[in-house]
Amino acid sequence: MDVSTAKPAANEYSSGAAYVRGAFMPIAQAGISVLDWGFTRSDAVYDVVHVFRGGFFRLDDHLDRFARSMQARRLALPEDRPTIEAILHRCVALTGLADSYVAMVASRGRPRVFGSRRPADCENHLIAYAIPWIDVVPPDVQERGAHLWIASTPRVPDASVDPVVKNHQWSDLTSGLMEAHDHGFDTVVLCDSAGMATEGPGFNIFVVKDGRVLTPDRGALHGITRRSVLELCAELSIPAEIAPIPRALLEDADEVFLATTAGGVMPVSRVGGRILGNDRPGPLSARLKELYWRKHAEGWHRTEVRRDAEAPMRGGQDAS
Amino acid sequence: MDVSTAKPAANEYSSGAAYVRGAFMPIAQAGISVLDWGFTRSDAVYDVVHVFRGGFFRLDDHLDRFARSMQARRLALPEDRPTIEAILHRCVALTGLADSYVAMVASRGRPRVFGSRRPADCENHLIAYAIPWIDVVPPDVQERGAHLWIASTPRVPDASVDPVVKNHQWSDLTSGLMEAHDHGFDTVVLCDSAGMATEGPGFNIFVVKDGRVLTPDRGALHGITRRSVLELCAELSIPAEIAPIPRALLEDADEVFLATTAGGVMPVSRVGGRILGNDRPGPLSARLKELYWRKHAEGWHRTEVRRDAEAPMRGGQDAS
Repeated sequence: MDVSTAKPAANEYSSGAAYVRGAFMPIAQAGISVLDWGFTRSDAVYDVVHVFRGGFFRLDDHLDRFARSMQARRLALPEDRPTIEAILHRCVALTGLADSYVAMVASRGRPRVFGSRRPADCENHLIAYAIPWIDVVPPDVQERGAHLWIASTPRVPDASVDPVVKNHQWSDLTSGLMEAHDHGFDTVVLCDSAGMATEGPGFNIFVVKDGRVLTPDRGALHGITRRSVLELCAELSIPAEIAPIPRALLEDADEVFLATTAGGVMPVSRVGGRILGNDRPGPLSARLKELYWRKHAEGWHRTEVRRDAEAPMRGGQDAS
Repeated sequence: MDVSTAKPAANEYSSGAAYVRGAFMPIAQAGISVLDWGFTRSDAVYDVVHVFRGGFFRLDDHLDRFARSMQARRLALPEDRPTIEAILHRCVALTGLADSYVAMVASRGRPRVFGSRRPADCENHLIAYAIPWIDVVPPDVQERGAHLWIASTPRVPDASVDPVVKNHQWSDLTSGLMEAHDHGFDTVVLCDSAGMATEGPGFNIFVVKDGRVLTPDRGALHGITRRSVLELCAELSIPAEIAPIPRALLEDADEVFLATTAGGVMPVSRVGGRILGNDRPGPLSARLKELYWRKHAEGWHRTEVRRDAEAPMRGGQDAS
């Protein structure tokens, strides 16, 4: 389907809109070849930006990070940055959603020559989509504070897979998540093999101890919500630092909260067997959460979604 | 497309045949949703069996391993084992290929409830396909012996991602492969962080030293070709062992060869800067390679492809 020739009714897109190989389509039709190395070798990088009440949050920061991730894995797309940006706008516009979770994926694709095993021979391609908002932690759980398990599976070391390059290789995180659910917990944080806290499935973690806010210096994505939290701490004159966090400090924290594009600032009320404070979100976590959303409403780092956006198209590619 | 109602011309399947969510289709049409956790979280396990001159090689062993991989990741398919087996037969039969590379993938799928982040909520599904034979190392390169680079990227530790559970998380292997290509080498082997040899992208590695054959005891898939090589060594009364292999031993080997379903026994003639023997496949490697293929031709561990196979189908699922 090509955008210039097909204008499906809006409701076809209510579950989401995608862009795959030059064409826009309802999310239900958006697929990747089972032979694409983005699937068979998890050879892809991605990023996710959210749209809140009709505006992207820190869109440029996400596009910057996406570009850095691609460069780190030697991925190069046919679409340039203004085109990618226009595609994201158009995906959201097609859905008609005010609040949305918007993903961009650069996939290795397939070799131009059959049988090649060389990444450099592959035709890289962009997948983008906008879908209804997803919270990593459901709103009612955020209200009481998430129960956070500490995984027995160690996080993959940075030297083997760079966590700063946003990727789909979640096996260690998924192992931890299943373990957390087995114990009746909501979600999980992983430590590295030296017992230092890293991150969880889709979020950074913060620890509050003696009035200071700390977030791990290793094994973790350089989260854009993490950066936002550090900016909010500066605004509130709360000392905050990216630092090593031993497991013991995590277990002995005054407060813990999570930070992610898919949910913002999410307070934790239990860490493993330990109940924090009064088993509810801590005061500093709650304050940061409130400010994070209030500033959203005030237009902080906002880029209005272009509802009439027509993405410039590359010609000649088939949807497949 | 449903197999019972559509019988495309044979040439539609000449590039491959796939089974996705209850339907057979030409490989070009076989896709996975961009929202499937098998893609977005690389939450899938797989296996690959080859077909040589019309017969599967060690099909039961591959199905056994596939079942173990699924169990390890708590994946459960709607298709039972006889059904999966019938689907593989039918994929090959549809292509008309005598030599084929046949994959089965169990993917986490998507949550039954929108917004769930729980692996247990997902609808797991099977993808299978048969495509023309692919050698990990092209035949002309096998002839002169592969040039094997030793990666600077350490293999992901077994404790974080179990390499015995066959998975798509190839990022560390891909990093090594790109490094190998940068140095003009054909492929790569990774060592773990302690400097012990593990495996390469899609193959096990063997070292021959003082008449003994060794293969790493860690960081590596329990390859079915690896098992075949160990059986051949027993048949030839060559001492063989699964053992720790320090990098120094790899660099000081008399011979090195690779073992994989996608190519069999593949001799190596250079390891990093070092030329092995006379820069050609070593005598023991060549002997094992010859025997491996001769026994194939003699029907070793062979299951004839059922050319008239009709796979029993589950009803009611759409191709998507």
